[in-house]
Parts: sequence; C-alpha cells; structure tokens
Amino acid sequence: MSEATTKSMDAIMALCKRRGFIYQASEIYGGINGFWDYGPLGAQLKKNLRDAWWQDMIMNPCWGRKGPNGERVSCVPVETRIIQHPKVWEASGHVAGFNDPMTMCKECKKLMRADHVWVARLAREGEWLSFLQNTQAWNQRGGLAIPEYFTLLFGGSSLTPEERADLNAVVAITRSERPNLPAGPKFSVLAGGQDEALEQLAMTELPAKVRKHLRDERFQLAMLYRLGDPIQDDGYAPCPHCRAENCLTEPKQFNLMFPTVVGATGDWEQNKAYLRPETAQGIFVQFKNVVDTTRIRVPFGIGNTGISFRNEVTPRNYTFRSREFEQAELEFFCHPDDSQAWYKFWRDFRMEWWKSIGLASENLILREHDKDELSHYSTGTSDVEYRFPFTAPGFGELEGIAHRGCYDLSQHQQHSGVKLDYFDTDRGELLPNGSKKGERYIPHVIEPAAGLDRGALALICEAYTRDESRPSPEFLKLHPRIAPIKAAVFPLVKKDGMPEVAEHLHQELSRRFGHMGFIETDEKQSIGKRYARMDEAGCPYCFTIDGDTLKDQTVTVRDRDTGAQERMAIDKVAGFLGEKLL
Amino acid sequence: MSEATTKSMDAIMALCKRRGFIYQASEIYGGINGFWDYGPLGAQLKKNLRDAWWQDMIMNPCWGRKGPNGERVSCVPVETRIIQHPKVWEASGHVAGFNDPMTMCKECKKLMRADHVWVARLAREGEWLSFLQNTQAWNQRGGLAIPEYFTLLFGGSSLTPEERADLNAVVAITRSERPNLPAGPKFSVLAGGQDEALEQLAMTELPAKVRKHLRDERFQLAMLYRLGDPIQDDGYAPCPHCRAENCLTEPKQFNLMFPTVVGATGDWEQNKAYLRPETAQGIFVQFKNVVDTTRIRVPFGIGNTGISFRNEVTPRNYTFRSREFEQAELEFFCHPDDSQAWYKFWRDFRMEWWKSIGLASENLILREHDKDELSHYSTGTSDVEYRFPFTAPGFGELEGIAHRGCYDLSQHQQHSGVKLDYFDTDRGELLPNGSKKGERYIPHVIEPAAGLDRGALALICEAYTRDESRPSPEFLKLHPRIAPIKAAVFPLVKKDGMPEVAEHLHQELSRRFGHMGFIETDEKQSIGKRYARMDEAGCPYCFTIDGDTLKDQTVTVRDRDTGAQERMAIDKVAGFLGEKLL
Repeated sequence: MSEATTKSMDAIMALCKRRGFIYQASEIYGGINGFWDYGPLGAQLKKNLRDAWWQDMIMNPCWGRKGPNGERVSCVPVETRIIQHPKVWEASGHVAGFNDPMTMCKECKKLMRADHVWVARLAREGEWLSFLQNTQAWNQRGGLAIPEYFTLLFGGSSLTPEERADLNAVVAITRSERPNLPAGPKFSVLAGGQDEALEQLAMTELPAKVRKHLRDERFQLAMLYRLGDPIQDDGYAPCPHCRAENCLTEPKQFNLMFPTVVGATGDWEQNKAYLRPETAQGIFVQFKNVVDTTRIRVPFGIGNTGISFRNEVTPRNYTFRSREFEQAELEFFCHPDDSQAWYKFWRDFRMEWWKSIGLASENLILREHDKDELSHYSTGTSDVEYRFPFTAPGFGELEGIAHRGCYDLSQHQQHSGVKLDYFDTDRGELLPNGSKKGERYIPHVIEPAAGLDRGALALICEAYTRDESRPSPEFLKLHPRIAPIKAAVFPLVKKDGMPEVAEHLHQELSRRFGHMGFIETDEKQSIGKRYARMDEAGCPYCFTIDGDTLKDQTVTVRDRDTGAQERMAIDKVAGFLGEKLL
Repeated sequence: MSEATTKSMDAIMALCKRRGFIYQASEIYGGINGFWDYGPLGAQLKKNLRDAWWQDMIMNPCWGRKGPNGERVSCVPVETRIIQHPKVWEASGHVAGFNDPMTMCKECKKLMRADHVWVARLAREGEWLSFLQNTQAWNQRGGLAIPEYFTLLFGGSSLTPEERADLNAVVAITRSERPNLPAGPKFSVLAGGQDEALEQLAMTELPAKVRKHLRDERFQLAMLYRLGDPIQDDGYAPCPHCRAENCLTEPKQFNLMFPTVVGATGDWEQNKAYLRPETAQGIFVQFKNVVDTTRIRVPFGIGNTGISFRNEVTPRNYTFRSREFEQAELEFFCHPDDSQAWYKFWRDFRMEWWKSIGLASENLILREHDKDELSHYSTGTSDVEYRFPFTAPGFGELEGIAHRGCYDLSQHQQHSGVKLDYFDTDRGELLPNGSKKGERYIPHVIEPAAGLDRGALALICEAYTRDESRPSPEFLKLHPRIAPIKAAVFPLVKKDGMPEVAEHLHQELSRRFGHMGFIETDEKQSIGKRYARMDEAGCPYCFTIDGDTLKDQTVTVRDRDTGAQERMAIDKVAGFLGEKLL
C-alpha cells in the first residue's frame, strides 16, 4: 500500500483551510453544496498550474518536442464563452444525452440518483436491501465494501451472521467483461466469505463499472444491481432513506447542464440557454475561424481554459467533483490516418507532464478504457488517474485523453449547415507542377482534457507530507514551479541592519519573480517557526540574512524538503532562484 | 479632435476578425447577441492584460511603491465562484436593486428598456415623437444628435422644416445640475438651432445623464424625457418601433442577473441561484477567511479576476457592453480615517497603470462622479474613461474606482449573522506594556474594478494605426508587454542554412518567452510581406537571419513602429527581448 493511502484527507482539508488554499464558497451563509473558493495560496497555486499548462501545451507545446510527423507540435489558444448558442449543445449531444437518471421516494420525497441506489436481492425469497452509493459513510470507506457497508447502514446488530454470509456472496464480476485489462486475481469471480479480496475489488474496480449490473453467475445466491439498470426486477426495491418498499419512482433523466435564460423576455422556453458543461465545444465551433484567420495547418491543436458547470446530483470528495470547475482542454486536429499515432503521443505526453510538475509515478496510472466504456465515436480513450487519499488504493480521474474521431466537427457541420472540412494542400497526388493535388477531409481529433481543480487537489495531496521528526510535522513538498510562495526572505533578527538588507532582497525578488508567485518576508517569531510556517505553505526556499551577511555579503538558503542550509552570495540569489523555478 | 475619433470601428473590427483577435461567439449558428469569443491572438492579448494586472496589483502591487501609510502596498488574490449562495446577492443589494426598467408595446409586442425610450413632446399640442437610444443608427452616430437622429428614424423627407426647427429646440440642460464639473460652454443651456453645440452636448454629456429628465426651461417649446422618468406625462408616448400611440406598458423592473437552478429538484423557486454580476462580492464574503488564514493586516487588498454576467437588455458596441465579460477587481480594506487617502492613491495609480501599458494620456480621463451619481454609501467614485472610437469625442468607462465605505461588509455581517469586523492591534491608546490597546472596526473599502474585455478593446483601439506611407497601411502599436506575438524570427531566404539558424533562435526564444506570448516564424513570401503581417498583428520585433548572419553571427532587428532596422549579435537577442518585454 503506497504512502498516499496513509494520508488523511481530513488533515489535508484542515491544512488547506488553515493556510488559505481552499475555502467553502459562501461559507458565511452556510456554504453551497458543490462549490469551493480558493484562498490566496490556492488561487496562486491554481494560476501556476494553469500557466504551466498554457506554456507547455500551447505556447511551447510539449517542451518544443517533435510530434509523430517529425515536426514541432503547433498549438494556439482561444477563449470562448460559458454561454453559447443553445444549438451548440444540441449538436454536441449534451441536450439529449448528458443526463443522470433520477428517482424519488413517494413516501419520504427524497430525490436521489437512480444509479447510486444499489439494490441487493438476497437469496431468500422476498428479502431486499438497498443502499446509496456516495453517502458520507460510503465515502469514508473509500467506496463499496458490501458487508461492512450494510453493517454501517443498518447498524451492526441488525444483520444476522447468516445475512452477513449471504451478503458476502453478493457481488460477482466476470473476467470476460474486461478483456483489455491485465490479468490478475482481482478480476476473478469473487464470492463467498472473501472479505479482503471483495473489499479490494470494491474499492478499485466497482466505481468504474457504474453502468453495469453485477450478477452472481456462479452461486445464484443473490443479485446486486443499480436502480434503472436494464435488468428485470420486481419493483420491490426499498427506499434507501426511509426503507419503505415499492415506493421509488421510475428513473427519469435529469440533464446535468445548468439552465439559464438570455434576454429580458423572461421566456424560459424561447430563450433558454445553458452554462457550458465543457470548454471543448467552444473550440469546435470556432475551428473554422481559427483555420481561416491564422496560418496554422493541420496537424495542430487549439487550447482553451475556463470554468465549466455540471449540475451534479451528488457533488463529493472535496473539490474533486464540484458543480463549478475549471478545465484545460486541447483539441488536436489531424488527418484520420495519423490519428492513432497522435493519440498515443498525447496520451504519453500528458502522463509525463503530470509527473514533471510533481506527481509521483507510483500514484499515477494511465488507464485505457475498455471497449464497452468508449463513446460510440471513440476508437480509444485513456484516463490519467491519480491515487487520491479518498480513492486509495484505487485511482480517480485527473485527465481524459480521447480519440474523438470526426464526431464533433461532423455534428456541428450537420447542425449549423456550415462546412467544417479542411483542405490539406500537403496531401494528395503529386501534380506535374511539383505541388500536391490536395485532400479535403474532416480532421480527426485527439482531446487531452484536464481538470485544473482536480490537478490542484492532486498536487496538494501529493505534496502533503508528515514527518514526525520535524518540530512541525506537516509540510507541502510542492514542485517549485507550482508552489504559490516561491521564496521567503528573513532577517535572522530584527536589528543590526538585517531587516533593511532583507527588505532590499525581498523587493528585488518580488520584481523579478512576482509574476510566478509570492515572495514572502517575515520578521516575527523564531527563525525555526518561520521556516516551519513556510514549509507548511510549500515554499521551497528560505533565504536568511544573518550577522555574516553584513560582513561577507552571503545569505543562507534553506531547502524545504531536506532542511539543509548552505551559504551563497546575496547577489547570486536571484540567479539561483531563477533556475530552480523553471 | 483627437486621432482616436478618426479611427474607424469597422476597420478595427475587420482587423480583429481577420487576424483572429475576436470572433462572434457561436458564429456558425448565427451568433448569440452579447457574447464574443477570443481567437488565438485575442486570447493571448487578454491573458497578457490579466497577468499584467495580477502582477502589478497583487503580486508586486503598484510596482513596489509605498502607499499613503508609508508602507509597501500589500495584496493577496482569491478565486471565487460564479455561483454563490443566493443570499450573497440579497445582502449585496443585487436581488432588489440590480434592475433595468422594461416596457413592452401592446401593439407590436416589442420589448425595450424604458430608459432607452426617449419621448419628445413638441410644442404643438398633441404631437409626440419617440425614439430609441442604442439602436444601430444611434450607435453609428456615436450617441444622440436629435435632429439628425429623427431624420434617420423617420426618413429625411418625413420631417418638415418646421418640425426640424422645433426639434432643434428640444434639449435643455442646466448648469446647476453638475456643479462639480469644470465650467465650459457645453454646460450652458442650449436651445434653438445650435446644431453643432447640440451635437457636442449630445455626444459627450447625455449618456451620463441617463436618470434625468431634460426639460427646456427657457423656451417651453418642447419636453424630452425618458420613459419611466418621474415626470408627468399623459401616457401618449408612441412606440418607437411601430409608432402606435398609447401602447407602452408601465415600466417594470427587470433583474439583470442571469438566473439558474442548482440541484436536481428542478424547483425554480426553492433552488434558484444567480450567475454573479460582479467578482467583488466573492471577496467580501471571504474577507474573514482571508484575515483568519493569512498574516496580512489592514490596510491590504484582495484581488479577484474572473467571468461575470449581466443580462443586458441591449448589448452593444462590440465587446464593450456584453453579457458575459471578465473583471479584475481589487477590494482594498483600510481604516475609515485613512480611506480618503487610499481612495486618491488608487484612483491615481490606476490612471497611471493604464498609461503604463500603452493607452495615450490624451485618450484617457479620470472622471469624478457627481454627487447625484454616487451610490448612497459612497463618498467618492471616479471612472477611468477611454475615448473609444464609438464614444469619441466622448469617453467610455474602462474602470471604476469606488470608495464603498463599510457598506458591503456591513451588509454581509447583517445578512449572515457572522461578525465581519476587524481587530486592529496597531491602533488604540498606548498601554503601559508598550503595546497598543487595539481598535475594533469594520474596514472601509476602496474598489478599483476594471473590465478586462474593455481594457483589451481599448488597447486594440489605441494600437490601431493607419499609415498610408506604408505598403500595408494598417498596423497595431501594441505595448510589448501586451502584444500577443512577442517576436518573429525570419530566415531571409529558404536556403543557405538560414532556416536552420532561424529555427534554433526561434526555439530558444520560445522556451524563454513562451509564457509571455507567441514567438512566430515564417519562411514564406517576401520579407516585406512578412514584416507587414507581423505589424498588423502587433508584433513589436522581427529578427531576420540573412547572409551576414552566417558570416558574423549577427541578425537584423526591425522595430514595428519605425520600421528601422539595426544589426545585433545573435547571442544578444534573448537579452534584448527580455528587457523590452518587461
């Protein structure tokens, strides 16, 4: 079990609040479920993450590396609106298809996601149980662990040993459903009393199986399924809240886009619009304009960052699944023949990129979607997943890299009536005059789509470290490029001219590195406490002005991670920091 | 008349579209009124503006300058949500007060802003005219010019000479209403045939008079007022669209906040929420958290940038008044006694800042609001206004700097029940132990609130230059810090090793300056055409690799504004550019 699984989400959230990384939105009004604000350190950390993405994906894509075509990768940015013409979302499929199934209990009037209601029919005729995924208890357990979960839900005493044994045999999953995954014992059929293996399965694999019913094919003891899954049931599923039987309404589709109305008529039908659920469609809609108004040629990418909204029924896991979140999406347009090579290129680069800004290899996986998980238009999708404390030992999605084929451009071409194909003058047969005949096609698209809030959360979780040998055990090992505080300048004591020297150095560093983050200064408390405070905020370097500084123009630089100190000439500080922050 | 007034908005918009600065949002679907996207160059220009604000207002505020208290100015950022708890907007006054008066014609069913309907009652009994402010014709005229406007509206032939004479006498404004403004002939009472002075008045002063009725007090020839203004009329105002009389409904308040609904109940009454109409309230709501989780002490500022929404009834003037726009707001908290000094400090710094990034002094004014324009809680508000081509010779607001007193914090304290006062340990009487007794108070707030879309538009308008002596007369004199393309590297010809040297330099500059903007390269067409293309995009420097480069390792650097070229060593290029881009 990796180190990450031992990190406490409560401790991380407490640090985030205490040091001004993340606050509940509208906190003084009791908060608003699914919305989080960033405090000073969080806002700068997120800006650093956004800027790193912008630089490494658009302005100097892939660090200047060449793509599979042997040329430098070319990208440009756009900034598109949250509110687009409603037809954009009809064309993209979001109006018809971006739904969660909802059910309501006729007895207690509680509303819930049907696919979060798990129903277990026990082997004994006529006995039913139901429970809700994503309740607090569920989340605290890190996922589904059937017997323990039922014990929690109904109270330890309400389950007889016989019932426990039955429940242990509830889940089944067949290897044949996931042919692409590496073989391993956790994909074997599980049943009967294997608590540990069952928990392992539940915590790692079940969340990815959300659209599946699970059926014990070997034992026929019981059946476990999600409400609304296309399997036969007798309608007896009890309400997981009030346990009344035969009370849940037929699941109904609820669209996850936030609606609004544009213009002063107040006519909801005529002037309904939506808050975008993704930034990607803004790119597709402007594809033609970008091609027509720049010299960029296929293959190339268009990047877009910004806020998107999804009216999640059950926002959860801190900032991981919130209703308002920021995306950084690239749509990379290429010839269909080259699309698989570009798909692999981007998938691998994105994995490498997340490592480059500080996520540990052992906490990252690149998960190739199973065929049955893919959208009908996609020939390949991979997720970069991170082992968050609340998913450990499993993983949660950080970024999806999808081969979207020509689906989006074709849809928008069809719905708008505007031609969105591309005339490629570098293709087609060679003409007698030496030029190419050209080829007209709708480009295929590779989409690396990252979540900046999830990215920020992963970076914080990764950085969070407890070292009991330190006077202040908690600190954040943030990558210098991401750290919101880049450096601190301390006078050892508040006299002998040290504050003035510190002030001068502080100003120089602020002027030079202020666009990257804070340069702190602090004259109060012991130097050890000041170091600890910077460690906790993730500041990588502290420069201290002491008695020797005034004699020989040197300062000490202290490294956050090792605590080691060395002396350097004060006029080398800016150069030193400049190299470290790249 | 300044140069700006001679700039054609049509030409600027054409360039913005042609070179990928600004596109209509959802253009392939016919657009959506009041929403604009940014193309590659516009997105990077806006990022540069946002980053410049972030650096100069938050990370290294006021360029390291000291405030009126003799200390360096201290600021921190936050990032707050577009959707906040709905009570935030009750407390801020936006639910009750953020309205436009709307009227509808019972005949033609057209909906319009009542305060945009101007009604003129002619001297001859029973004769009425009405017209709409902010129609296209109005905008093309740059504002209100009564006789010409009526001629446009009703067709040249529909006005008799007698009617024209009457209309010339329609507007009156009394000097006494604006005692704070400098004296001048344009504030005299105007009437009767003074076409030129009338036009001057209309184009510069009337837009600021939106809540006033104007009455000819000297001549009693006629009366001109806005529908809904509290003056007596007989209800005969004809519809400006269909001209039916006695048909306009009583003006009704329309809230400018976009509504939405949070959660899956779909219950509009119970779960209604709003898209923020300003980023400022997110700051006030988190004031306590920032104070509690950082070491920052009053006086200090909290900055916030992000998208806001206002459901404008009549979006207009390109990106100047749109429904989705980006703000950069700072709330600066200080002791009430110091607030006037800070108000003046920020007002002056903000004016200086806009100049520092390229706006010309002669196109900027700092307009102190009249007493009757101020909110009831404000003791002073100034607007930084820019002379846009569509307001020239008048000005349009770029930024407002408001002294908001303790209004916002007091409102949120009252509505949330959470104490938002501040305990200032640097104040109060000196105690025997040498420390201060402290003072508890609700800080006063100075708010410099800038519009980033307006800022970007002003920078583009300012930069737009026509020089008929150039082969390609149009170019953009963008400040190097703001320019989206920072430099271009050209091989003079596509042979003799020049492309390889260019490629090498291009890579070096991209790595080093890519976070600030594009480094372009281009091998096609004549060098003159390549320069012209860069000029039009606002690229300040072009570096050309020529035959001499291979001999003596020098390149030419060409200045966009003068066209002058000089040689420099190729290894000095990065240093040269680094200095220019600061």
